[in-house]
Amino acid sequence: MKVRIHVSLKPGVLDPQGRAVHHSLEGLGFKGIEDVRVGRLIELEVADSTSDADLDRMCRQLLANMVIENYRIEKPESVA
Amino acid sequence: MKVRIHVSLKPGVLDPQGRAVHHSLEGLGFKGIEDVRVGRLIELEVADSTSDADLDRMCRQLLANMVIENYRIEKPESVA
Repeated sequence: MKVRIHVSLKPGVLDPQGRAVHHSLEGLGFKGIEDVRVGRLIELEVADSTSDADLDRMCRQLLANMVIENYRIEKPESVA
Repeated sequence: MKVRIHVSLKPGVLDPQGRAVHHSLEGLGFKGIEDVRVGRLIELEVADSTSDADLDRMCRQLLANMVIENYRIEKPESVA
């Protein structure tokens, strides 16, 4: 099954990459942009037997830096 | 409004970062992982008046490299 993991910086954590993108978008002439945050999207193709607990452990041990990042797991039901 | 943009490598494009993550997950003892792809998740806070065409232009001009990447725009209706 296909699982999507969204990793994003916690609110309050400085996001220099997001700021750079924000600045560049304004430089390109786009108006009305208030905030930009850049995170990671990890798409896993895993065995159907993989449990939610396993996915959780993958995130905590490797995929997200729990000190500054949050993650959200999107399972097949919700994947288009 | 909050808009999420998912940027992922096109199928067939080599993903060394994904391979590294795949390898590391196996090294940590996780079984049954068939594929890992790493992409970007860009969260924009934009004026409600921002049109779909504008968002599309942001992606094409800056956020995604159209040669090797696909993007998908997720608008508020579908953002939790």
